[in-house]
Amino acid sequence: MKISDRIEKALVEVLQRAKLDPAPPKLAAALNYSVFPGGARVRPQLALSVSIACGDDNPKLSNASAIAIELIHCASLIHDDLPCFDDAYLRRGKPSVHKAFDEPIAVLSGDALIMMAFEILGMSSADTPSRLPTLIAALGRSGGMPFGICSGQGWESEPEINLSAYHQLKTGSLFVAATQMGAIAAGEDPDQWIELGARIGEAFQVADDVRDALEVAEQIGKPTGQDIAKNRPNAVAELGIGGATEKLQDILSGAISSIPSCPGEADLCEIVKNQASLLTPVNFKKQSI
Amino acid sequence: MKISDRIEKALVEVLQRAKLDPAPPKLAAALNYSVFPGGARVRPQLALSVSIACGDDNPKLSNASAIAIELIHCASLIHDDLPCFDDAYLRRGKPSVHKAFDEPIAVLSGDALIMMAFEILGMSSADTPSRLPTLIAALGRSGGMPFGICSGQGWESEPEINLSAYHQLKTGSLFVAATQMGAIAAGEDPDQWIELGARIGEAFQVADDVRDALEVAEQIGKPTGQDIAKNRPNAVAELGIGGATEKLQDILSGAISSIPSCPGEADLCEIVKNQASLLTPVNFKKQSI
Repeated sequence: MKISDRIEKALVEVLQRAKLDPAPPKLAAALNYSVFPGGARVRPQLALSVSIACGDDNPKLSNASAIAIELIHCASLIHDDLPCFDDAYLRRGKPSVHKAFDEPIAVLSGDALIMMAFEILGMSSADTPSRLPTLIAALGRSGGMPFGICSGQGWESEPEINLSAYHQLKTGSLFVAATQMGAIAAGEDPDQWIELGARIGEAFQVADDVRDALEVAEQIGKPTGQDIAKNRPNAVAELGIGGATEKLQDILSGAISSIPSCPGEADLCEIVKNQASLLTPVNFKKQSI
Repeated sequence: MKISDRIEKALVEVLQRAKLDPAPPKLAAALNYSVFPGGARVRPQLALSVSIACGDDNPKLSNASAIAIELIHCASLIHDDLPCFDDAYLRRGKPSVHKAFDEPIAVLSGDALIMMAFEILGMSSADTPSRLPTLIAALGRSGGMPFGICSGQGWESEPEINLSAYHQLKTGSLFVAATQMGAIAAGEDPDQWIELGARIGEAFQVADDVRDALEVAEQIGKPTGQDIAKNRPNAVAELGIGGATEKLQDILSGAISSIPSCPGEADLCEIVKNQASLLTPVNFKKQSI
């Protein structure tokens, strides 16, 4: 089965379970709405690609690890879009969750997706429980405090901010978790995969900054110019569009050369190159995160 | 060490870690503010009491299980207090998190505490990884959708609501997780501990309804009468204060007689009796949840 099909199938299954009795219908519908249709699914594709490169000896756990990362990502988008943060009215080309439903449902949807991300890892680990402690620790670290998404988002409430720490926490950490968890799910040492995740995460953030600056709202399905409007740290503000685009290419080259020697190395290089091409400004219209 | 000291020490440690560089100071402070000083810590005390009754052969994991439950509970309180839900200005006798800090920090605090709850389980499971899949599954189930707190809270957004399902999901599920996880952390079968958790959870909800109806805001440190004001399901509305108080005593007697035969059975009965006495209306002033 194709990587993308494995991810969608696993997401459909876990979201179906969330609809079981006694689920409240509106919240169940909001969970589904927030996860389907997805964006480019870059993070779970990266995780599953690494699992496959490492032998993929427990496909159920590889799939669970990939979608756990996507569920945390979706949760962070829902909460980021709330009126008290970005007050965004569009996400992935349709109304954001609090616009399509309401604020209580949006808060609960994010919470439920976070719980679901961990729960699916627990439910998929019976055959190889020894892999679960590091999987859970990696996911918690990348999502929470002080090393994850919450920490990054929290810096927006501070009077002074460190650009690289902010980006690493808010965006980079989940990419690092993707490559680490992909390796752990397949029984491999995660440490040698950190650099790949870190570089792709950095590239992704720079690409997002360039996209934001170019204000192509219609093409990417979400409001743009938010960083500039809110005076938030931004690679374009620091380097200009040309400088940021150049930096992006350098980071992606480094990402590909960081891929460790493994059975599926060549295939993984191809996958990363394909993902990388989506991050070049000319191809922005093809994806929404 | 006393049960309560073990819980506070473990909570202090995990909250200290959340302050490490590069944590944003406001969010780190809010996490601390939301967890200390605690309420009665009923749920973690119940979990740890069950672990001890079951032999407590891995105290680190018993402690982690107990505080994981408390962290999920604290997260649910922060989010429940948000303007879009109860819009509560007091919690545990001081301003709620969104009042003391702001709404973005309150949303992030809840998210970070959920992540932390799972992460601490992962970080405490290296010695007995085979216990982790069921611990994670039990915690995720009790917090999320369709069987946990989010599901219960989600029912408040529905036009019609089933009183017993609502209470079981919003309050009961975490008490069930407390007894289950206490047993799992000590390597015991969780199934025989479900009834104890379910009965205490039910008692707790009925006690909360009675307290809410009595409107003793100053004594318990949070605004009361919310259920009645918002026409939400409530045992007092169904049975009257006398009927609800009688039901409470019946449930607590059942809870004590449900305790399975185990080495620490007698001690656990005492602990449950002590917790139960806090749930009688005359003693409400002694605790805040």
